[in-house]
Parts: sequence; C-alpha cells; structure tokens
Amino acid sequence: MTSKRHFVIDTDPGTDDARAILIALSCPDVEVKALTTVVGNTSALQAARNGLRILQVAGRLDIPVYVGCTKALLGGVLDSITIYNGTDGLGDVPDPNAPNDSAIQPEHAVTALLRLSKEFNGNLSLVAIGPLTNLAMAIRLDPDFGTRLKECFIMGGNYRGVGNITASSEFNFYHDPEAAYVVLNQLNCPITIVPWETCLAHSLPWDIYYKIRSVGTPKAEFLKSVEACFLRNNLPSGRKDFMLADEFVMAIAIDRNVVKNSSTVYATVEVKGHQTCGQMVVDWNGIMGKRSNVTIVTSIDDALFRKMLLSSVDCKDETLL
Amino acid sequence: MTSKRHFVIDTDPGTDDARAILIALSCPDVEVKALTTVVGNTSALQAARNGLRILQVAGRLDIPVYVGCTKALLGGVLDSITIYNGTDGLGDVPDPNAPNDSAIQPEHAVTALLRLSKEFNGNLSLVAIGPLTNLAMAIRLDPDFGTRLKECFIMGGNYRGVGNITASSEFNFYHDPEAAYVVLNQLNCPITIVPWETCLAHSLPWDIYYKIRSVGTPKAEFLKSVEACFLRNNLPSGRKDFMLADEFVMAIAIDRNVVKNSSTVYATVEVKGHQTCGQMVVDWNGIMGKRSNVTIVTSIDDALFRKMLLSSVDCKDETLL
Amino acid sequence: MTSKRHFVIDTDPGTDDARAILIALSCPDVEVKALTTVVGNTSALQAARNGLRILQVAGRLDIPVYVGCTKALLGGVLDSITIYNGTDGLGDVPDPNAPNDSAIQPEHAVTALLRLSKEFNGNLSLVAIGPLTNLAMAIRLDPDFGTRLKECFIMGGNYRGVGNITASSEFNFYHDPEAAYVVLNQLNCPITIVPWETCLAHSLPWDIYYKIRSVGTPKAEFLKSVEACFLRNNLPSGRKDFMLADEFVMAIAIDRNVVKNSSTVYATVEVKGHQTCGQMVVDWNGIMGKRSNVTIVTSIDDALFRKMLLSSVDCKDETLL
Amino acid sequence: MTSKRHFVIDTDPGTDDARAILIALSCPDVEVKALTTVVGNTSALQAARNGLRILQVAGRLDIPVYVGCTKALLGGVLDSITIYNGTDGLGDVPDPNAPNDSAIQPEHAVTALLRLSKEFNGNLSLVAIGPLTNLAMAIRLDPDFGTRLKECFIMGGNYRGVGNITASSEFNFYHDPEAAYVVLNQLNCPITIVPWETCLAHSLPWDIYYKIRSVGTPKAEFLKSVEACFLRNNLPSGRKDFMLADEFVMAIAIDRNVVKNSSTVYATVEVKGHQTCGQMVVDWNGIMGKRSNVTIVTSIDDALFRKMLLSSVDCKDETLL
Ligand SMILES: [Ca+2]
Ligand SMILES: [Ca+2]
Ligand SMILES: [Ca+2]
Ligand SMILES: [Ca+2]
Repeated sequence: MTSKRHFVIDTDPGTDDARAILIALSCPDVEVKALTTVVGNTSALQAARNGLRILQVAGRLDIPVYVGCTKALLGGVLDSITIYNGTDGLGDVPDPNAPNDSAIQPEHAVTALLRLSKEFNGNLSLVAIGPLTNLAMAIRLDPDFGTRLKECFIMGGNYRGVGNITASSEFNFYHDPEAAYVVLNQLNCPITIVPWETCLAHSLPWDIYYKIRSVGTPKAEFLKSVEACFLRNNLPSGRKDFMLADEFVMAIAIDRNVVKNSSTVYATVEVKGHQTCGQMVVDWNGIMGKRSNVTIVTSIDDALFRKMLLSSVDCKDETLL
Repeated sequence: MTSKRHFVIDTDPGTDDARAILIALSCPDVEVKALTTVVGNTSALQAARNGLRILQVAGRLDIPVYVGCTKALLGGVLDSITIYNGTDGLGDVPDPNAPNDSAIQPEHAVTALLRLSKEFNGNLSLVAIGPLTNLAMAIRLDPDFGTRLKECFIMGGNYRGVGNITASSEFNFYHDPEAAYVVLNQLNCPITIVPWETCLAHSLPWDIYYKIRSVGTPKAEFLKSVEACFLRNNLPSGRKDFMLADEFVMAIAIDRNVVKNSSTVYATVEVKGHQTCGQMVVDWNGIMGKRSNVTIVTSIDDALFRKMLLSSVDCKDETLL
Repeated sequence: MTSKRHFVIDTDPGTDDARAILIALSCPDVEVKALTTVVGNTSALQAARNGLRILQVAGRLDIPVYVGCTKALLGGVLDSITIYNGTDGLGDVPDPNAPNDSAIQPEHAVTALLRLSKEFNGNLSLVAIGPLTNLAMAIRLDPDFGTRLKECFIMGGNYRGVGNITASSEFNFYHDPEAAYVVLNQLNCPITIVPWETCLAHSLPWDIYYKIRSVGTPKAEFLKSVEACFLRNNLPSGRKDFMLADEFVMAIAIDRNVVKNSSTVYATVEVKGHQTCGQMVVDWNGIMGKRSNVTIVTSIDDALFRKMLLSSVDCKDETLL
Repeated sequence: MTSKRHFVIDTDPGTDDARAILIALSCPDVEVKALTTVVGNTSALQAARNGLRILQVAGRLDIPVYVGCTKALLGGVLDSITIYNGTDGLGDVPDPNAPNDSAIQPEHAVTALLRLSKEFNGNLSLVAIGPLTNLAMAIRLDPDFGTRLKECFIMGGNYRGVGNITASSEFNFYHDPEAAYVVLNQLNCPITIVPWETCLAHSLPWDIYYKIRSVGTPKAEFLKSVEACFLRNNLPSGRKDFMLADEFVMAIAIDRNVVKNSSTVYATVEVKGHQTCGQMVVDWNGIMGKRSNVTIVTSIDDALFRKMLLSSVDCKDETLL
C-alpha cells in the first residue's frame, strides 16, 4: 500500500487559494497536514479565517490552521490588496456559520512549519501560494528547514518580466521581494515555480468557467459565491478568460504530468531595483555561474488540469470541459 | 522622383555593425549621411577607424565619420569587450591599407548629430547600433534634438529579461543604462527597437551563413576575414546558428516589411537594480499609466531579411538562401 | 527594596562584547537574564561558546546562553570578520577549561527573546551589541515584541556617515542592514543608539588602557589574554587610542548619566544604496515628517564611563584613571 | 604686474548666487569671463535672465551669459524649486529695465565651458554654484576638460549626511546626483567643496545681515529687493540666522584664507540609494583605496568672509560687522 503524500499549504486566501486548496483536498493521495497563513490578499489572521471556511466547505476542519507573519520581511510597501477579492480576500460575503477564531491553532505558522518539517522529515511537500514571508522566516530560524522538505512548489514571480502588480513584478514576489530572494537562494530543496506568464497563458475560457460553476455541488456554490466580487471587479475590463494562478501549482504538486514544459535554471529576485523590485531574474545561459535552483513551469496540460479543477468541486462529468 | 532617405548610423563596429552598415550602403534608396561612433565593442576612436575600413570596402569614403563619447554617461562599469570581436572590434585583422586617422572628421559626433538633425530637419532617420551615449548627450544638449528626427531605430535592450552580458541585460543597454533610460524616455520621436530576444530567435543557420560568405565578392571576403575571430570565439560553445544583432534593425530601418510582429508600448530601463541594471522594463498592461514610447519588434521576416543580407555583399543569387 | 533591573544581552562576542558583558555583570543593580548570540564577529555558535567563557570568568554560568541567527536576514554579504578579534572572535586563545557545548541552551535565541519579553513584560532592557538579526526576527514573529520591552540599547550605525567596515557603514548595521532597518522602524520601544562616531570620539588613551589591564584580577587577565590579538592587529596602524564600542552602550544602559549629549530624532537605515548600504540615515530637520524613534548618543561622560570599565575587572582603585 | 585670475561661474541664480556673483565682481584681482547657467533654483533660461540682471546692477553687462542644460543628466526628479526664491529664482520682483533676451549669448553653456577651458588653458578657475549638469556634460564631451582647468570650486553636497532637500541630500547634488558623481570622480582637476554643513555652521546673524542691507548702495538695494521673498518664506520658521551658501565658496575661490579647516579626501556621490540618493560619501579612512579627489572645507574665517560680503555691496565700513 502506498502511503499518502503529505502537504502543507502556505496561503493567503484569496479565491485562487480557495480553489487550489479544494483541489488538494479532493485528491485521495494527498493528506493536507496544515494550512499556514501569511499576509497578502488579506491579513494573516483573516487568511486563517478564510482557510477555516474553505476547510469547512470540504468537511475538513480537522486540518489545523496556523497564523503566520503579519507583515513582509522588511515590513512591506503594500497593504493587502482589495481590488481583486475584496477586503476579506474572499469576496466580502461573510458566512454566519463560519468557524470562530478558537478554531485557529495557537502555534505560530513559522514554528509549525519547522515542527512539521521534522515530523515528516523528507516526506513533506510544501505548496506556497502566498507571499513567501513564512518560508523565509523558517529558513532564517533554522537553516536546515529546507533540507527536511521533500520539495517546494511556489506560485509566484515571473520569467519574462511581465508583472501584474507593477509593470515588472508579480504580486506574491512583490509583496515580499526579500523573502522570495531568501527562499529561492537558501531553501535548499527542489523548487518548482509557476510564474505569472504561465498563468496568463493558461487562463480559463469563460464558457468552461461557467459550466464548472453550474454543477450545483456545495463546493461549486461556495466558490461561485466568493468569486462574485472578483467577477464584478474584473469583467468590465473585458478579459476574455477567467484568470487562475495558485490552482496551477497545486495541480502540479499533485501530478507532475500537469507540467507540459519547464526549465531548470538558476533564478533569483531583484530586491534593489527602482522599476524591477520583486521581479524574478532568470539566468538562462548560466552567466552568473550558479547552480540551478528552480524548475520554472512554462506551459501546462490544460486538459489534465481542468479535469482536476472539475473534480475539486465534486463533479466528474468531464463532458463539461 | 522620390528623394532618397537620409540615415545617420551611430555605431561601435563590431562585426555586426559592419554587416549592418554594408546593408545600408547596399540600399539604393538610402543615403548614409554620417557614421557617428561610440565606445562599446571597442573605443570610440577605434570604432571610427573601423567605420572607415567598412566604408572603404564599400567604396564610400565620401561618408564622414565622427568620433563620439569615449565613456558611458556616468563613466561606465564596462571596458569595451573583446570576447566577441577581439581587441579592435573587427577581429584583430588590421588592414595595412586602412584609411589613416586624418580621414576622421574633427567635429564631435554629438555636435554632428545635432547639426545634421537641423540640416535634415524631419527627414533624418537615426539608426543606433551601439550604446546610446551619443544620443543621450545630444538630447541633454538640445531637448529638441529628437523632434527634428523622422525616427530612430535601436538595436538594444530586451523584452523578456534575457541578457547576454549579464543574466538580465543586453550589451548595448548595459554598457550605458542611463543613456538608454534617457533615450527611451526623452528622445520624443518614433522609436523602433530590436531587442536581444528577437535576435536570438532569428539567428542565421550555419549553412546559410557559409553560403553567403562563399560568394567571393570583396565585401564577403572582408566580412569573412573580420568574422574569423568571432567564429573561433563562439564555435566551441556549440551554437547551432550564427548570431546577428545590428543587422536586423538596419534592415527594418530600410524596409518595415522586415517586421513580422511588433508591439507599441511604454518601455523604460532599470538604472538602479542590483541584478537588473540595464534591463529594459516593458509595461505591457499600462500599469505605469505612461504613453507608448517604443515599438518593440518581436519577430521578423527571415526570408526578406536574408535577401537583404545577401544583397549587402553584392550577391543577387537568391538560390543560396 | 528596589528590585533589580533585568537585562538581556544580544551579542556576538567579540572582545568589546566581552568587556561590555563584564560591565553588566559587575553592576549590582542589574540582573542579566540571558545572553542571546548572533553571527557577526564570529559564528552564532562560536559566539555562544565565547559567551560561556566570559560568564565563566565572572562565575556566572547560571546565566543561560541561547544561539541565534546564523546568517543575516537576507543571508548576508559578509562572512564573520577575523581582522579584529581573530577567527573565534576572542583572539584565538582557546581555553581548555571552557564550558562545553552542552552548557548552551537548546532554545533558539529568537524564541528565548520572545519568551523573556513576556516573562518580564515591561521590565526587560534589551542591550544589542551585535548585528540586529535576532531582534528583527523577533519583531517579525511577534509584532508586539517591542511593546513588551522597557527599552532597547544598540551599539551600531553612524550619525555622520563615518564607517568602519565600508566608507559609509558601521559593522553591526552593515552586517545586516535590513535587520537594522526593521528594528529602527518597527521595534516600537524607546531605543538608544551609540553610533560609531561617538565610539571614535571617546576611545581610551593607551596609558589608561594599560593601567586597567595591569590590575591582576582574573577578569583583567582574561581580557588581556583575549585582547592580545586585537592589539597585534591594530597597533601597527598606529592608532593613538584603544578603540571601544559595545562597552559604551552597556554603560549607558546601566547609568543614563554616562550620556553627556544626545539627540532624539527619526533615523532609518539605507538598504538599497550602492555606496551607502547599511548607513544610518538621520532626519535632523524632520524633512521626512516621521516621529522620532531613536535617541542618538553623541558624547559621553568619560570619567564616569571609565570608572565602570575599571570596576568591571574588579578594581576600585580610581587613581588609576 | 600680476595678471588677473580668470573665473567662470556656473550658476542657477538664486539669491545666494546673486550675492556670490557680486562678491566675485567686487574683487579687483578676478576677471569673470562668463556666467554659464543651469536649471536649479529656476530654469536655465530664467537663470540667464537673472544673471544679466545681476551683471547689470554691477555695471558689467560686458560679461557674456550662456544658457546651459535645461534638465539634469537623467532628466531629473525635481522641478526647479520655488519655496526659497520664488518662481523666477530672484524673489519674483521683475525689473522692467532688465536686459532683454537678446543679451544672452547664442552659444550653449557646455560648449562655452569647453571653449573657455582651451582659451585660458591652465588659467581658468571654475566656480560651480548650481547643480553640476553642465560640468558633467563638458567632461563627457571632452574628457580633457578638467585637465585644462586650474581648479574647480563647488558649493554642494554634505560631509555628515545632513540634507536640506531630503533628509540626507543637499539641493545642488540632489538635483543632479549623477552629474555630481561624474564631476567628483572624473573632472581631474583640484576640487574644493563647501558642503551644506559648513554653510549651516557659518550662517549670518540677523543683526549683521540687516546692517549690511542698510548701507544704501544700489547693490545692497537690489539684494534687499530680491531677498524679500526669501525672508518672508523663511522668517516664520524662526531661523536665528540668515542662511548663506554659494557666497562661501566664491569667497574661498577668491581668497584661500577664508578656509579655516579643510580635509583632502576621496569623496563620491550615492546615485542608487533609496534614502541617500545624492548624498556625498566621504571615505575618511581610505577604506575604498582611492586617491583623494576633493578638499572639503569644514570651517571658514567668518571675519574675513564677512568683510568680502560687505565689500561686495560697495561698502567699506567694517565697523558694521
Ligand atoms: Ca495566494
Ligand atoms: Ca553594435
Ligand atoms: Ca559586538
Ligand atoms: Ca546656486
């Protein structure tokens, strides 16, 4: 019998985090050991509350949720952003039946990450779908943190200088460029990155989006409800597709076959630039003479990915895709 | 009768500059009014000597050559590079019959640029195929310089963060990032850029290269001679193609049909970054709220371009391509 | 009965740290609750070993020593420096009777700092005489850390741009500029800084130094032994005085009367500059519009300070001064 | 017979420039060969108009005035500032009898500087009392520019990190940090700098100021008139003295005895810092291993200076001081 894979999800939900977490929870081979939260789409505390609501929809309140860093490593230039997912990060549709704060673990997310890395030494996959502050803190507290991880999956950064929060920077990396710098350079475990350009290239056609949301399951209804704000905010700009992000890296963490193309290279993060602060810097030709430290996913298998997306809302009717 | 177009070529030859200049000289519709030189592949003075040799091969020593800036705007972090085209920038195969220095104009290149912009007010196309120091100096001396140009074509920068001299920066921009910043932001005339990634994507297959070099004309023999150093330096690394750069932008300056794809956007240059100094920064989605200032050529018509390359060495046998 | 004051000393001994710690231990009103160590003059682990040796000389092995961060917040550009105090930070004169590593506490220094701040809520004085990495980590793990401190004393930075490790930067701040930035801006407790220029202005005349070292007490003998390396390294350069640093801020932490002049201002730390990375930036005239966050000590009472220095080696003969 | 000394004054008048120019014009040993203007206190063109008015008051319209750079080397982050000397830089009290623009030379200031450096090769003293853009441009156009100067005097920068326009930067250097960087590092002639802290330390007591302005000469009346705006703007803030700046360096250029203390050191300018951009960086202890390039004046002879100030308004009654 194959034992399950152990995941920890470091997250700042965010509706894309919500979808990513539901993908993980729908995968029978994966056991999510914890959610650890970080400031990003919303505050670290609100992120934990959001995490609990997502777990509740999936009937998995047994999974512990830990609150992590409330600010970026240097304090941060950004407040949490509200233009996508509202003030609370989940579309500002509070649930009166949401778990209360006593359901949040008292342990700090960074301490929890360190402890779990020891408990599941060599068998823990870390999926990081928010700013990388908690991970950088864990590294700095314990330089061996990464060596105890099996692997790390990150949604963040960019590989062609295309930004979403500044012209050159992707939100997760820009929110804490120094943390991203520390993680890429000092985590010392296999790192797989889904950068922003890959998300842009694999956005979901609206017709598929609407079909997936019409299946009537509680998870689909929950997502439809929390995504309404995002749709209101983003439809007027006439995007031809529904943008996804964290979902891709979760799907890849579960099944490497979702990766269609990738490059294993040395990459780091600009922390000093005026225009480019937070941009990922990729040394495609080995000019820096550094060992490869990341695998950058440049394209994904849409069909396989979309099946996982469908499955994550408890629907198996693949004719919808 | 259509009057000829007037070109000034700002250059640091460089074997790719040599090929680009020969392309311009082979075009019956174009009148090259001057070469202005700048430190880059070699010193500004040596660049002028190289310019004279190139003109001599084409029997065009009537075209004046002006020496420009001997250092980058801030003094520069790079000396001229010798790893591609040797110490003298033209493969270190000096010609005993080369014109002597008295053939170089006494006027400074920057002054010459300003004067020519007035003489051919509105009818001068500037093709910049070296670091942009002279152009930035002309702008600073006379803010109206660019408004008197018809257009400016630049080989330099990158649009996906792919570098050749650092991991993130292309040589011409990295050699003088501040000048590139000034030119992109303050030239105030239509600017067309051929960035490094486009050069990478349209390199010349070796078989075509060798055919073009076997045609036996004096120009082909000259280029073969000065390119030998580059081939020695670069073949061992096993490149599957012959890399071109300045030639593309010259071909485009002559015939816009060489452009297959392009984007008109706002772009600037990072001058402060630690990893990214000299990188071009492209605001694909208008996040900075600036007006478009450049047209970035992202792909070219290989067939049309290669015909021009062949023609530039006085060969019309298109079956070679 | 007045209760004792509680100190925690965050340190990277260092011979000046050794003298500073002995000053604290010689003060009857002060109870040193812990040493926490950080990479700087030597590794964090070796710093803990050095701390134990210093405590042993003072017969105070009851004071717990915690190992802290092994690298600066971003990983650091400096290795620990050996030009002053040798490889081990204490002059490379190992003591065969030194305590062994089992005497070091298993708890991490950052966790210990957080715990102690709770145990002695409002009654803990933190004296930081190394790079500020541990403090920045404590702040990021718990934003309320500083509000539970009574006060913080820091040796580090500069107020007139005079550096010792670079032209513009003092060692402790340069070793971890980002941590210094976080501490000054986000600690949220009264901060007193002794900057490098103040140390320079109050160095110890050699004759007094030699008199204090000739008193024959075990502490004086210990210091003489560990300082020999520093003297060898620094005498040839002909300094007219013996340089002190950490001692000043410890004396001030014990007795505010040691401060002769000070300014309470807003100060921050440059983390991006090319020449000035790690420099303290003082807004003397309130141009930034920020609230004062530090008191910078600009001159000290030499006589009072030197009495404490003498007393710290168990000598009361003030005629030596 | 001793021949006169030849001065060129590069300036952005500014009431302190006005006083400085009048000091130069009142010195019988000095022949002012030209004013060259630069954007700073006002536009380069308005600065030339102001220069003409100042020359007119002194009956010296024979001295040519050249307009220089209209923007800083990179384009600049500052517009000209109006909070001190109003919109026109001379207190917004236009003179209907001011010379008209035809009195301005057609030659560009940078070209004029280069030409004059050749005409008076080795015998030209350059006094720079505005942003250093013109000087940097002259250096970049002709690397030998400075070697033909006898010496250069600069009001600008700071030596203890005290700023007036930002917390860390003095106005002239901050207005064009890159130009200041180029001039300090690449002018290659003896450079004497009066930094901001020295100006602060030698400001003029109000009683002396008012006495000097009450002497009734045309020059005093002119200055009183143009200074009124400055007084209105600055008196409410309760400064206890009248601030001077450009006057000091002019006095020193005329008579070295005005210097009481100075240090000859290597100094450069931070061009990348976030907080410190434009700050002068002084390597007091030779850590950078560079040759000394500037003499920084740290204190001046008030009595001697004030005599020159009095004399500059055609008054010899030294009992006023
Ligand atoms: Ca997220
Ligand atoms: Ca070139
Ligand atoms: Ca220390
Ligand atoms: Ca001025």
